[in-house]
Amino acid sequence: MKNSISLGLDFGTESVRALLVDLEGRERAVAVVRYRHGQITQRLPGTKKDLPPDYALQHPQDWITSAARAVRQALASAKCGADSVIGIGVDFTSCTMLPTLADGTPLCLLRPFASEPMAWPKLWKHHGAQKQADRINDLARKRKEPWLDYYGGTISLEWFFPKILETLELASKVYAAADVWVEAGDWFVWQLVGGAAKELPRSTCQAGYKAMWNKKHGYPSQEFFRALHPKMANVVGEKMPGRLLAPGELAGGLCSTMAKKLGLRAGTPVSAAIIDAHAGVAGAGAAEPGTLVMVMGTSSCHMLNSTTFRSVPGVAGIVEDGVLPGMVGYETGQAAVGDAFDWLRRTLGQRNFSDLTKLAATIPAGSEGVLCVDWFNGCRTPLMDASLSGAFAGLTLRHTPAHLYRALLESSAFGVRWIVELLRENDTQVNRFVATGGLPHHNPLLVQIYADVLGEPVSVPPAKHGPALGAAILGALAAGKSVTGFSNVAEVIHSMAAPPAVRRAISTIKPRSSQVTLYNSIYPRYRRLGDALRQSV
Amino acid sequence: MKNSISLGLDFGTESVRALLVDLEGRERAVAVVRYRHGQITQRLPGTKKDLPPDYALQHPQDWITSAARAVRQALASAKCGADSVIGIGVDFTSCTMLPTLADGTPLCLLRPFASEPMAWPKLWKHHGAQKQADRINDLARKRKEPWLDYYGGTISLEWFFPKILETLELASKVYAAADVWVEAGDWFVWQLVGGAAKELPRSTCQAGYKAMWNKKHGYPSQEFFRALHPKMANVVGEKMPGRLLAPGELAGGLCSTMAKKLGLRAGTPVSAAIIDAHAGVAGAGAAEPGTLVMVMGTSSCHMLNSTTFRSVPGVAGIVEDGVLPGMVGYETGQAAVGDAFDWLRRTLGQRNFSDLTKLAATIPAGSEGVLCVDWFNGCRTPLMDASLSGAFAGLTLRHTPAHLYRALLESSAFGVRWIVELLRENDTQVNRFVATGGLPHHNPLLVQIYADVLGEPVSVPPAKHGPALGAAILGALAAGKSVTGFSNVAEVIHSMAAPPAVRRAISTIKPRSSQVTLYNSIYPRYRRLGDALRQSV
Repeated sequence: MKNSISLGLDFGTESVRALLVDLEGRERAVAVVRYRHGQITQRLPGTKKDLPPDYALQHPQDWITSAARAVRQALASAKCGADSVIGIGVDFTSCTMLPTLADGTPLCLLRPFASEPMAWPKLWKHHGAQKQADRINDLARKRKEPWLDYYGGTISLEWFFPKILETLELASKVYAAADVWVEAGDWFVWQLVGGAAKELPRSTCQAGYKAMWNKKHGYPSQEFFRALHPKMANVVGEKMPGRLLAPGELAGGLCSTMAKKLGLRAGTPVSAAIIDAHAGVAGAGAAEPGTLVMVMGTSSCHMLNSTTFRSVPGVAGIVEDGVLPGMVGYETGQAAVGDAFDWLRRTLGQRNFSDLTKLAATIPAGSEGVLCVDWFNGCRTPLMDASLSGAFAGLTLRHTPAHLYRALLESSAFGVRWIVELLRENDTQVNRFVATGGLPHHNPLLVQIYADVLGEPVSVPPAKHGPALGAAILGALAAGKSVTGFSNVAEVIHSMAAPPAVRRAISTIKPRSSQVTLYNSIYPRYRRLGDALRQSV
Repeated sequence: MKNSISLGLDFGTESVRALLVDLEGRERAVAVVRYRHGQITQRLPGTKKDLPPDYALQHPQDWITSAARAVRQALASAKCGADSVIGIGVDFTSCTMLPTLADGTPLCLLRPFASEPMAWPKLWKHHGAQKQADRINDLARKRKEPWLDYYGGTISLEWFFPKILETLELASKVYAAADVWVEAGDWFVWQLVGGAAKELPRSTCQAGYKAMWNKKHGYPSQEFFRALHPKMANVVGEKMPGRLLAPGELAGGLCSTMAKKLGLRAGTPVSAAIIDAHAGVAGAGAAEPGTLVMVMGTSSCHMLNSTTFRSVPGVAGIVEDGVLPGMVGYETGQAAVGDAFDWLRRTLGQRNFSDLTKLAATIPAGSEGVLCVDWFNGCRTPLMDASLSGAFAGLTLRHTPAHLYRALLESSAFGVRWIVELLRENDTQVNRFVATGGLPHHNPLLVQIYADVLGEPVSVPPAKHGPALGAAILGALAAGKSVTGFSNVAEVIHSMAAPPAVRRAISTIKPRSSQVTLYNSIYPRYRRLGDALRQSV
C-alpha cells in the first residue's frame, strides 16, 4: 500500500483544490486553480444584462477545466503515475445546484438558455429565493410536515427546493426543459463516473442537509409539493432521478472521458460527494461521536456525529449518514464569522488585522464593557432567522476599535457556547472540541477566547486542507478494504487524518480558569442582549 | 449710542474669547487667546506628580492673563477707546470652581497648596467626585429633599457640592483653609469688581443649575449638609459668602486694578456671570418663552425659557432667573454629541468628516436599518444616568461606515425629540427651535435630520460666537437703560442679537414631510431599543 494515494477534490467558492495524500496521511501534492468566471454576480458571460444584487451564479465548465488543471498539476508535482491513485473523493460548496438535460448537459450551455440567469448553476450564496423559502416554511408549518423537526423548524433560502421554485416562478421554460435538478457536487461525481440519469449518484449529505431528504421518509411528499405549486407535484419523481449514497460509498469507476481530461486511470473508484464543510470532520481526524468539529471560515459550520438521533430545536440539520456512513450528523452554524471579522476590519478603516489583534489581546475578557451580538448575517443556530441583525452595546467614548474587535470575537464564541448548551440540554453529548477551517490557524486569539468561553480545551489540527483531506479519505473508503486494507471508517480516518506526526502537531488551547469565570458571568448578558434585540429592533 | 460697545468675555475649556459688539448687534472685533496651561490632566504645573485619570484642573492665573490679552487685542482691532465700552458680561464653563482665601486668592497659588490637586480649580469635566455624587443623591432621596425635583431626581458628579465633598474627604486641610468656595465665572466677576467676600456677586445661573440653589428655598438645608458630612454642616454660611444676582444684573463697576490689566475704564458696569451654554440663549436672539435653544457642541445643552414653573421629571435643571432675569430657565442636555461624532470618526479610521458626511447624505432616513442609541457618555436628559452606554443595532455585512455615522446623527436627533416630548407632556410649551453652538454651522446634514426628526423647522442664526454675544448682551443689560436706552431684556436681545442684517442671514431648515413620516415610525424603535438596553446590558 506504500504507493497508494487518494485524491481529494475540494470545490470552493472561487477555486478548486486537488490534494494527493497517501494512506498514512502524508501529503504528496496540492494544487489550487481558480475558476475562470469565479462568482458570477454582475453579468452573465457573453451578455450585457445586469444581474439583480442577490444573485450569485457559477459556470459549470469552470469546475471541469479547473479540476483537470489542478489534478494534472498535483500529479506532476507529486511525481507519481495515475496508477498510484486508488480512489477519488469530491467535496463541494452546497447548496450549489443546477438544471441539466438527461445526459447531464447543463441547460445554461444551450444557446436558448445562455442568457437566462435561472438556467445557470446557482451558487450556495445566491439569495434570490427568499419569498420562495418563506412560502415553503409557511406551508410546511401549516401542514406540520414531520421533516421540519430535522431542520430546526426552518429551511433556508439557500437550499435546494427554494432555488427550484424560484426558477419555476421566474423562468418556467427553464423548469420545463430541466430533465434533472442536481447538486453541483453530485453533478461533478456524475460527470466522473458517467452513466444514465437514473444511476446518478446523489449524496445523502447534500440531500439530507439541503433537500429535506431523510433515510426513513425520503424527500417531502407529493402532496406537499403539489400544495406548494401544482407544477412541482412530481418534482422528485420527474426531475430528481438517481441513487442515494452515503459519502464514502462507491459511486462508480472513473469514466474514460474524464480519466483523459484529468490524467487519471479509467475505472479508479469514485466516492459519492459530500458538502465541503462536512468533509472537514473526517479531515480533522474526528472519527468518534461526541466531537464538535468547528469549521470556521467566512461562516462557521459546527458538526457533530452521534450514535443517536435526537430532535434538537434550532439545529440546522440532523441527517443519518449525513457526514459519515453509519452515524447521525448534526449540523449547526453561525452565519457570519470570518465575514463579520472582515466587515468590521473594513468598517474600522484598518488595512489588516495585525494592529487590531495585538491590541485586542491586551484588553481583558469582556472588552471593558463592550458587548456584541454576532448576527451580522442573521442567526443560523439556534434561531434560524436570517432577518436578525448584529449589534454592539456598552459603547462609551473610551472604547477603541480593538474593543469592538475583541467584543466581536467574544460574541462569536458566545454563539458557539449557545449551540453547545442546546445540544447538551437535548441529551446529545459534546465532549471534545476541534477547530478547523481557515480561521483558527491565523487567529490564535480567537481560539483562546473560544476555549475560555466554552471552558473546554480546543484542539487545532495541523491540516491546512481539512475538507480536501476529508474528500481524499472518502476516496480511500470508496476504494474499499481489498485495496486499502482498512476495515472501517474510523481506521481510515485515524490512519490518514491522525497519524502520529499529525497528532504530535495538534495544538491544544486550554481554558484559563480566571477567564472562564469571567465569561461565565458575561455569557448570560450576551443572551439577554440578544433577547432584548429580538424583541425591540 | 452709536459708539456704545459692550464686551462679552467667553471663557471656554481651552481659551477665552473677547467680543466687542455695538448695541445694534454689529460685531466690532473678536480675539481668542488660549490658556497657557490649557486643561491640566497629566501633572500639576511645577510638579512631577501624575494626576489620576479622571482629573481635569485649570490654572486661575491663565484666566486673567488670557482675558487681558484678548481684550487688548480686541480693542486694538476694533480701533475704539476704552470709553466706548459701556458694559462687560462674562460667561464661563460650569461647574468650574475653586477654593480661595477671603480676599479671593486661589489656594493653589499659595506655596503650601501648590502641589495639592484638590486646591486647584476643578474644571467642569473633572470626574473625581463620582462616589461623593452617589452619596449626595442617595441621601437626598432618602431624605426626600424637595430640590431634587428641580434636577430630574439626580445631581451630577460635575456639580458644585460633590466637588467640595471630594476635597473635604481627600484633602481636609484644603477644605479647612478655604474661606470661599466659588464658581470660576463668579470668581472672575469678583476679580473684575473687587470688594469683600461678603459682597461676592454670585450668579443665580451657576447657583441654580450647579449648586442646588433656588429662589424660594435657597441652598440645601444645614440638616442635609450635616447628614452628608458633619464638617460640611455650615458650608453655605461659612464658606459661601456673597450676594445672588441674576445674569444681567449689575455686579459692580470695574475695579482700577483690573481696568489697568484689561485696558478698560474703571467703573465700567459688570454683569453677574452666566454659564457659557446658557449665554447662548440670548446670543441666539431667543428672547421669548417657548424657544428651545439647542447649543450643540462636544455635548449639547438645550435651553428653554418659560413663564411658568413645572416640575418636569428628568430635566437637568429648572431655575428661576437661571438664564434670563424674570423667566424660568429649563436646562436639558445630551452628554455626547460632537464628542460622539468625533469618537465614531476616529473609531472608523476616518481622517475627517467629509467622506462620511457626503455618503451619509445619500443614505435614506433610517440608515437602512442601523439604529443607534446615543448614550456614549451616559444619558443626561431625561434619564440622568451617567452609567448608561451607547449602542448600534440592526447591523449587517452590507452596512458601511457612513451608515453608522448617519445612524449616530439620527440618534442624536431622536434624543432631542425625546426631550421635547417630555417638556410638552409636562405642560411646557416648545414652539420654536434654534440650533447654535459649533456644530450646526459645520454640519447642515445634522440640522436637516433634526428638522426631519422633530417635524419642525430649525433656525440656525449666523452668530458664530453665540455665548460671547450673550455675555455682551448681559453687559449691556448691566449698563442699564440710562446708558443703553433699552427698557427691557427682550429689547436688548432683539437689538443686539437679532437686528435686520442678522435676521436676514438666519437659515431655516424645514422638515421634509416624507422624512417626517419615516422618522415618526423609527423614533419608537429608538425608544424601545433604549428601554431594552437599560434592562439587559
